[in-house]
Amino acid sequence: MNQLQEYIHINKERFLNELCDLLKIPSISADSSYKPQLLQTAKEVAKALEKAGCKNVQQIPSNGNPVVYADKIIDTSLPTVLVYGHYDVQPADPIDLWDTPPFEPTVKKTDIHPDGAIFARGACDDKGQMFMHIKAIEYLIATNQLPCNVKFMIEGEEEIGSPSLASFIKEHAELFKNDVILISDTGMISNTQPSITTGLRGLSYVEVEVTGPNRDLHSGFYGGAVANPINILSKMITQLHDDNNKITIPGFYDHVYELSEKERTEMAKAPFHQSEYNKALNIDEELGEKGYTTLERSSVRPTLDVNGIWGGYIGEGAKTVLPSKAYAKISMRLVPGQDPDTITQLFTDYFVSIAPKSVKVTVKPHHGGKAYRTPMDSIGYKAAHKAYSETFTNTPIPQPSGGSIPIVSLFSDVFKSHTILMGFGLNSDAIHSPNEHYGLFNFYKGIETIPYFYKHFTDLYKQDA
Amino acid sequence: MNQLQEYIHINKERFLNELCDLLKIPSISADSSYKPQLLQTAKEVAKALEKAGCKNVQQIPSNGNPVVYADKIIDTSLPTVLVYGHYDVQPADPIDLWDTPPFEPTVKKTDIHPDGAIFARGACDDKGQMFMHIKAIEYLIATNQLPCNVKFMIEGEEEIGSPSLASFIKEHAELFKNDVILISDTGMISNTQPSITTGLRGLSYVEVEVTGPNRDLHSGFYGGAVANPINILSKMITQLHDDNNKITIPGFYDHVYELSEKERTEMAKAPFHQSEYNKALNIDEELGEKGYTTLERSSVRPTLDVNGIWGGYIGEGAKTVLPSKAYAKISMRLVPGQDPDTITQLFTDYFVSIAPKSVKVTVKPHHGGKAYRTPMDSIGYKAAHKAYSETFTNTPIPQPSGGSIPIVSLFSDVFKSHTILMGFGLNSDAIHSPNEHYGLFNFYKGIETIPYFYKHFTDLYKQDA
Repeated sequence: MNQLQEYIHINKERFLNELCDLLKIPSISADSSYKPQLLQTAKEVAKALEKAGCKNVQQIPSNGNPVVYADKIIDTSLPTVLVYGHYDVQPADPIDLWDTPPFEPTVKKTDIHPDGAIFARGACDDKGQMFMHIKAIEYLIATNQLPCNVKFMIEGEEEIGSPSLASFIKEHAELFKNDVILISDTGMISNTQPSITTGLRGLSYVEVEVTGPNRDLHSGFYGGAVANPINILSKMITQLHDDNNKITIPGFYDHVYELSEKERTEMAKAPFHQSEYNKALNIDEELGEKGYTTLERSSVRPTLDVNGIWGGYIGEGAKTVLPSKAYAKISMRLVPGQDPDTITQLFTDYFVSIAPKSVKVTVKPHHGGKAYRTPMDSIGYKAAHKAYSETFTNTPIPQPSGGSIPIVSLFSDVFKSHTILMGFGLNSDAIHSPNEHYGLFNFYKGIETIPYFYKHFTDLYKQDA
Repeated sequence: MNQLQEYIHINKERFLNELCDLLKIPSISADSSYKPQLLQTAKEVAKALEKAGCKNVQQIPSNGNPVVYADKIIDTSLPTVLVYGHYDVQPADPIDLWDTPPFEPTVKKTDIHPDGAIFARGACDDKGQMFMHIKAIEYLIATNQLPCNVKFMIEGEEEIGSPSLASFIKEHAELFKNDVILISDTGMISNTQPSITTGLRGLSYVEVEVTGPNRDLHSGFYGGAVANPINILSKMITQLHDDNNKITIPGFYDHVYELSEKERTEMAKAPFHQSEYNKALNIDEELGEKGYTTLERSSVRPTLDVNGIWGGYIGEGAKTVLPSKAYAKISMRLVPGQDPDTITQLFTDYFVSIAPKSVKVTVKPHHGGKAYRTPMDSIGYKAAHKAYSETFTNTPIPQPSGGSIPIVSLFSDVFKSHTILMGFGLNSDAIHSPNEHYGLFNFYKGIETIPYFYKHFTDLYKQDA
């Protein structure tokens, strides 16, 4: 056991307890009634950074929730790593599907996590992964081994699309200046096969409202004679895909980056079994865009999903109402080449165009972000590769993710530096779902791997200079 | 002013106050948490019947909410009228669209009701209309002018499809034996043009559940690769109608009674203006089955409407979830010839058949009932016609309604007597909607008209004997 492993071993209970304290606060950014809990979480993160030995700890106001800043500048001639993470979490509903309460962290063993996993909203996404960085720097400062400068940017609006961060980072560009951005907010293939996320999908998220009559009507007196906004909305949603599950919005695929045959062959090498995948989800058959594999559909192809729908009577029993309005939340995952603002506009134009005259339609954009690709020949990617190789039994493989961290492409525009996505979660961790959890193995292994990234990045940076 | 009008005039404040007391109790049968309020309302209705001079007042237990019985038997050789009504009401949501609280009755003047209307859930449907009968018999007993026997059946489950009443009336067939059934739970064309409802549509009401993956998923990791139950449900709902808005369920139209050209011409004589109709609903264009008029679509043609839909994240803001389940409540209005159980089965078979293999589907029947037609050559219809002619400036015209009172066809099966639908509501009364109201003119005019029905029915019955 080396010094780093020993430090983690000695402090493992304390690390876990500190993380649990953070997980107990329901910092749900999508619901404005949780604002006090967001502020409290920001304060606790700031305290934890201070305790770890960081300097200049600040909760910088933004147009929304504050952004926690901290740094440890040891020598301005050395490279600077900016660690990004977020302290906000997804809503916990549907609450009744959680086996343990979402904000009462509970450690339980699972088949995939025989050493135990911590169950709580935000355990993996992203409090658990963000907290690994605080513990890693605690070790490096405590043992006087920090090889480079480090800055932290821990925000509180990632789960709602970081609406305040674009203007924030432009305003504070100098403060957050860096040579590479390091984020642990993604996953890897398995605990025996690490992987580095080389791509993120972009996002366009909209809310649509379809209005029929000006008030809820009795379906006996008006049904069949007046457009029912639920029936119409259903039809309009249906019209967004064709029979091959291609998206029908004109221009949607215009600038989509199409993978080469070689790239597709490379991707197909990742370990994947459709039958196990279907079994884990209890589905008889997968469904997606014709001509592409499940791995391609869920990472490098653009998609459109309804994330929520509601209208009419949804209580117990029966109510014979023809509602005035029906609503849906719809998101599109984008790939390199697709501009989120353009896609939102194309969606809006098309959606309005397919509405029959018997209804009125509005489309409200929620948030968006561009897709991102990490260049594999960058020193950041190479440093990450070396770091995983030090602490895992297998070397990591590159893997594009289907998820989105909308702010990442903006980082590359503003800071002109690459983002390295060193995620330690697993697909089975149920992030955004009931019973979200994060393996203790992954939590401690992350703390162990991060210091090697700093070391190798600094070495490669010096060689490169 | 005759004696009846004088009685109403003297007691008009008291009548209104008594009705308001009843309207204050939220007797929502669709939501089981309102059970105590249902029981309280039954008790108050029983008290009111007792106070009016009725005998044998009982709250008879059923499998669900109790049925209030009362009678006034004056001579067994005279005919017996069974008055049916209901003390339960529709849910009040969406609550925020009410201008005054749904269970705090408020009298306000409107364009259509210059003398004022009482705004409350149940004001028209059916507490207000049911209460007219209690006040009418109060007058007849008080002045010793009741010309026939009268029985009351006031139930508490009409708004959920009267699930307990079928077995109840078979069990108590002798007690409720009658020569004609009188119901005020429908409407008329306008306060200057009375009409008698000659038909009701039947109903089949189902709830469907579409299950994709076994848990809510992150739409970034699974979107595009796994069937999204909302997208699938939308597509399945769309497939229930063709481009001409005909229902696509195989066999759905098999036994539908098609109106003759003569009947269609008769119907078209009813006062109706499409442009005013559209303006009142603030719609640019109506929508319905091709080849039929709005009046036909909303009364004599079968229809299918989604009454509620829900799935995924429906809270504030954005959540990128691919949900496990999506749901809809769907009702079909039926016409003579269509059997509700058969239609429910046809729906279920078809709905299951159009589900892709990537999802699982369940269909849960809620309730149903057959359509009904009142024969216009019956003495009941003739008596109603004479009654309206006595109290209104115009003679009433027959009009089929698009609404459903599922129990009515069962009454005709069990009691072998006709049901006469003497409704005094207006289409604009917003029953089942926010701001339901009932005109004071209509309330008092109903009390005035009912005694004439008893008189003329008894006379025609004697002539017929």
